[in-house]
Amino acid sequence: MIQQINQLEFDPHMIRLGTGELAPALLPAAELKEILYTSSAKIDSFGYQEPLGLKQLREQISQHLKKSGIEVSPAGILIVSGALQALQLIFFGLIAPDSHVFIERPSYLSSLKLFQSRQLHFSEVPLDQEGIDIHALRCLQKRRTHSILYTIPTFHNPTGCLMSPERRRDLLHLAQQLRLPIVEDNVYYDLWLDAPPPPPLKALDDAGNVLFIDSLSKSIGPGLRIGWIAGPEPIIEQLGDLKMQHDYGSSILSQWAAAEWFASGLHEVHMQQLRQKLRQRRELMLSVLKEHFSQLATWQRPHGGFYIWLKLNRSLSMPQLFKAARRENILLNPGNIYDSLASAELRLSYAFAEPEDLKTALIRLARVLQKLA
Amino acid sequence: MIQQINQLEFDPHMIRLGTGELAPALLPAAELKEILYTSSAKIDSFGYQEPLGLKQLREQISQHLKKSGIEVSPAGILIVSGALQALQLIFFGLIAPDSHVFIERPSYLSSLKLFQSRQLHFSEVPLDQEGIDIHALRCLQKRRTHSILYTIPTFHNPTGCLMSPERRRDLLHLAQQLRLPIVEDNVYYDLWLDAPPPPPLKALDDAGNVLFIDSLSKSIGPGLRIGWIAGPEPIIEQLGDLKMQHDYGSSILSQWAAAEWFASGLHEVHMQQLRQKLRQRRELMLSVLKEHFSQLATWQRPHGGFYIWLKLNRSLSMPQLFKAARRENILLNPGNIYDSLASAELRLSYAFAEPEDLKTALIRLARVLQKLA
Repeated sequence: MIQQINQLEFDPHMIRLGTGELAPALLPAAELKEILYTSSAKIDSFGYQEPLGLKQLREQISQHLKKSGIEVSPAGILIVSGALQALQLIFFGLIAPDSHVFIERPSYLSSLKLFQSRQLHFSEVPLDQEGIDIHALRCLQKRRTHSILYTIPTFHNPTGCLMSPERRRDLLHLAQQLRLPIVEDNVYYDLWLDAPPPPPLKALDDAGNVLFIDSLSKSIGPGLRIGWIAGPEPIIEQLGDLKMQHDYGSSILSQWAAAEWFASGLHEVHMQQLRQKLRQRRELMLSVLKEHFSQLATWQRPHGGFYIWLKLNRSLSMPQLFKAARRENILLNPGNIYDSLASAELRLSYAFAEPEDLKTALIRLARVLQKLA
Repeated sequence: MIQQINQLEFDPHMIRLGTGELAPALLPAAELKEILYTSSAKIDSFGYQEPLGLKQLREQISQHLKKSGIEVSPAGILIVSGALQALQLIFFGLIAPDSHVFIERPSYLSSLKLFQSRQLHFSEVPLDQEGIDIHALRCLQKRRTHSILYTIPTFHNPTGCLMSPERRRDLLHLAQQLRLPIVEDNVYYDLWLDAPPPPPLKALDDAGNVLFIDSLSKSIGPGLRIGWIAGPEPIIEQLGDLKMQHDYGSSILSQWAAAEWFASGLHEVHMQQLRQKLRQRRELMLSVLKEHFSQLATWQRPHGGFYIWLKLNRSLSMPQLFKAARRENILLNPGNIYDSLASAELRLSYAFAEPEDLKTALIRLARVLQKLA
């Protein structure tokens, strides 16, 4: 099903109700073009770059991370071509093959084809309202060596869950006790809608136990292909060596544009405007859900990110639902791509479809669900 | 030793006598900046791109390849982040693990750390003046299933060898007979210095037996991170899917800049000027070799590319030579990183070191060799 979704993502006839991407209208295209003009004059080399990436960009990111309480020097930051490449380098280069990977149930990682074909063992840990279930993690982890935890504590993909400050502290404490390294995926952090989220795990990580992944794709533009990993310098150096073996570094044009983006101060201005627009889209989706899905499903109000995790009142065949929706030109992200056992969940996204389409498609989807029930 | 070389590449005190990269002074920086200005206005989306990459760039590349006799539609072209990523996708994603890879002896592939750690079996095939030894390849291949050939027919790395037209035809014929797929690395093709080279293997490939790798890194600027793979459409589609799993596509800024580079006609103008400058550097290196190395080594005059494969008259310890040169602030690419049995070869490059440095370092290297002899 993942492959079908990936292909249909490029079909202009489909209304994409679950796509994890900003709508074209939400991308700061004019500002980015401005940045390209100014940054092109600054580029001082079109040659190969040093392994960690453009120093000017790493300095900007180091400053940017300070705002959420993370202290990391440019030598502790590696520039990568988006968060997916960060995952690729960490899980298929850094950690031992046959390692045990703890993920949330459901998890974005489960939806990546790449992670299905390789020699890693996954254990799914339940989520509650406050984040990953610490007791379950402790029980599951007890007997494992070579293990690592992947988590999205802030505006979780696909559930939208925001990990509470207490849970963050407890998780770090447990991970330190168990000597369990954590990969923290922070890509939705800046997309808070109601109030700034609690500090990332990395900000509280005195033990150097957290590898931190972030990207510009969810908030500025995925076309730039700019992300970063922050962590202990020896590990970042090792990852930099792996990055060089993969593609000799990321585009220098994108790196300069990203550096200039942060240096110009445009980031804060854009995020403020973006939050406003995302809030409107969230409210629209919530109001349509309230009107048309109250008898069909339950959901939580998300405080940031892109997603609403819709829990249907009755289980049904996910492939059947997917096909029925597709016949109505609706592209869904069914829950079973994030959790193989899910049979009554859907990831909805208010970030991508245009408001009118979003409304039309949701109403149509409600009818499809009524028919299938 | 490869790791040491990679690290020393970023040491400004070293004179790099073997580096496979254009000197900063040879990169068309001013023209590229112009291109950035004009291309930034044309960018129509900062979102995720379709799997094969920007259509406008694939159309330009399709046109560009026609000049060397290759007919391939944009649907047969995948944009990647440089030739290294092309190798990564083909050898670690496309072909079966445990496959048998035929490479030339010596070969660039042997120098890549990535290829040393993975489950591929390599067989080295000798090279003569006209290219890879067909008879040796036939003998070696006989007993193998799941095999593939990697070759650099035009201005081979590290020897500079140019495969003759007859050898190209014979190789294609044999490969078809043996059902042996070919990966043709074409990255030095445009860097001819005396006369345009014979058509690439891909231009003669009626059977769809050749996967063709090319890049802008050797002729325009590696910082762009733009390369491509051309081949049969079903295989390109498969590789496009793999590329999406790796990093969701290459930087849209670099892709637009590359499209604009070709569309502007700057490519031909730049290549003409670049060839002129590379010719001067080649002549300088040849004249210093003639004056100072005649008693120490033999070599061939290369007709394009970056490299002279220096064959020392006497074997010596490669690590010892590397260290002795390093003490003189000379960074060498010893032959044994391209051929584990080499004990009397060096890859020299006239592309990177500035002329004065190149001369000084070569004279110093001659003295080092005399001392070690």
